[in-house]
Amino acid sequence: MNSTKPIIAITMGDPGGSGPEIDLKVVRNDEIRSKANLLLIGDFKTFEKASVTTGTRNLKLRKIADPSEMVDESSTINILDLGNVDFSKLVYGKASALGGRASYECIAKAVACAIAGDVHAIVTAPISKESLNLAGYHYPGHTELLADLTHTKEVKMMLVAGSFKVAHVTTHVSMRKALDLIKKERVLNTIELTYQSLVNLFGIPQPKIAISGLNPHAGENGLFGDEEINEISPAISEACSRGMGVLGPFPPDTVFYRAYYKKKMDVDAVIAMYHDQGHIAMKMVGFMDGVNMSLGLPIIRTSPDHGTVWGKAGQGIADENATAEATKLAIELANKKFKLIK
Amino acid sequence: MNSTKPIIAITMGDPGGSGPEIDLKVVRNDEIRSKANLLLIGDFKTFEKASVTTGTRNLKLRKIADPSEMVDESSTINILDLGNVDFSKLVYGKASALGGRASYECIAKAVACAIAGDVHAIVTAPISKESLNLAGYHYPGHTELLADLTHTKEVKMMLVAGSFKVAHVTTHVSMRKALDLIKKERVLNTIELTYQSLVNLFGIPQPKIAISGLNPHAGENGLFGDEEINEISPAISEACSRGMGVLGPFPPDTVFYRAYYKKKMDVDAVIAMYHDQGHIAMKMVGFMDGVNMSLGLPIIRTSPDHGTVWGKAGQGIADENATAEATKLAIELANKKFKLIK
Repeated sequence: MNSTKPIIAITMGDPGGSGPEIDLKVVRNDEIRSKANLLLIGDFKTFEKASVTTGTRNLKLRKIADPSEMVDESSTINILDLGNVDFSKLVYGKASALGGRASYECIAKAVACAIAGDVHAIVTAPISKESLNLAGYHYPGHTELLADLTHTKEVKMMLVAGSFKVAHVTTHVSMRKALDLIKKERVLNTIELTYQSLVNLFGIPQPKIAISGLNPHAGENGLFGDEEINEISPAISEACSRGMGVLGPFPPDTVFYRAYYKKKMDVDAVIAMYHDQGHIAMKMVGFMDGVNMSLGLPIIRTSPDHGTVWGKAGQGIADENATAEATKLAIELANKKFKLIK
Repeated sequence: MNSTKPIIAITMGDPGGSGPEIDLKVVRNDEIRSKANLLLIGDFKTFEKASVTTGTRNLKLRKIADPSEMVDESSTINILDLGNVDFSKLVYGKASALGGRASYECIAKAVACAIAGDVHAIVTAPISKESLNLAGYHYPGHTELLADLTHTKEVKMMLVAGSFKVAHVTTHVSMRKALDLIKKERVLNTIELTYQSLVNLFGIPQPKIAISGLNPHAGENGLFGDEEINEISPAISEACSRGMGVLGPFPPDTVFYRAYYKKKMDVDAVIAMYHDQGHIAMKMVGFMDGVNMSLGLPIIRTSPDHGTVWGKAGQGIADENATAEATKLAIELANKKFKLIK
């Protein structure tokens, strides 16, 4: 194995969705293959089938049982086989207990490999919350599952589209619950995780971060809500007193615009208070299928920011662009963290 | 007066801000002048001064006391003088009781002219809530003031950027208050006002409207909040049963994207549940200074969707584009409503 290239694990995702096919398209990408040793983690037969539906190419699928068996050959795709999909039962395009269990097992294996140091980063293909639930795993999504598997208390979601990065104080909860969660400590914690990630993962020595308000016009001095005064501003002050370059809170409807278009605002990331602040902003500028990464985990993890694409499963037609971007980001972050490129 | 051209009143806005200068730039726009008879409403001396700071042009400012005195001459700008700015006290770039009172009087006069049928539509220049408050007028913004002046119970804000239109169920309230307000009746009312405006003002015979959810992923079947199930969906069903073409609720982070880029969604408007859903979406696609219009008023009213631009006041440098667009929309809507163009 070439030690100057990072080893990137890519999970299969829900076998009833488009994950396996998307993965196949990504590992066949010559540019990506040239920069990393890629390891698919999932069911070998499922990947074989995906290899057919996505169109043949002169690349050999190689079944292995342990990352140590990987080979770095230009014509070989290494697949860590978990043998966990029963084809007689798999139905494309819908949630199932089978899909949920397989999804879970792939992620658990990828995390174990990353913790053990066998891979430098993991990219996770889309899973279905419904499948997970049917299989008895009760998580709202990847983030919470990864937190559990790595015994991490606080994990935050960051969307990444080149230099436009948005971290979230809250994500997959109702708006009512989000309002209850937006407290000084949680905002401060999100700022710290974002700051540390920018320094340690992205290699930005003194990052600057803009914080969005929660309410319209960032509360207009308390007229439209007091969370900016009571929770968000105190968190910003505290972060500044700890030496972090943090600005805000800014009106939500302009801070993402200003940061993205660099209108009198030159920051390395914006912090959104809730899911749709960041997601609406990111998608409207064309990053429909952006890259999602987890802040706070002991491992590097990225993923496409879209679902299972049920409607295209088994037809080999789902777009792999977001997963390709997620893989490139994982490679970049792995190179920086492990200083693999001198 | 040429009766085939609509008469459009444009208010001065806060005289301490950039409104008077922006107005001057707009009324000098030959294309706009060719399509309407424009009537500035405000303080004559303030407009004279703005005429100097924005650069001289061979157009005569004509002081009148009543809309009936307007002349339709290519070289003349009609100004309905309220004589309500004391120059010895005016300070550019900050809120004042003087500015608030003058702002209020211009709007009240413009509304009276529109109700009386002396003008076909009004365009309002930016005002300052702080100035209004200092002058003793306690309104969060234009919308509420206009509702009061016209004795209208329900007024909704719509942002317009060409064919991309977003109406709002709630606007200038805290997120906590917004959550309390998002009830079936209010959602239904917003749908009806939007539908009627699309039919009656925009002349769309059978409009289609997409409704955003409130919670992430539109609540994911109740997992992330139940407003979609208990309030929004029943409002949509009721609207459909009344014959309106209404779809949703859709995940907030994709509905604006899909409607704007026409990705498997061809609708005439989207309804946002709260201020920043619509405003983030609109601004991220480049309409930083979009056009705002009021739904439900007995008169046509548009405005630029930005503030007083304090920082550029008195220097003649504020951008007039949003107000120019607001004026063009007012002209278009007035032509349709009053069938001035055969």
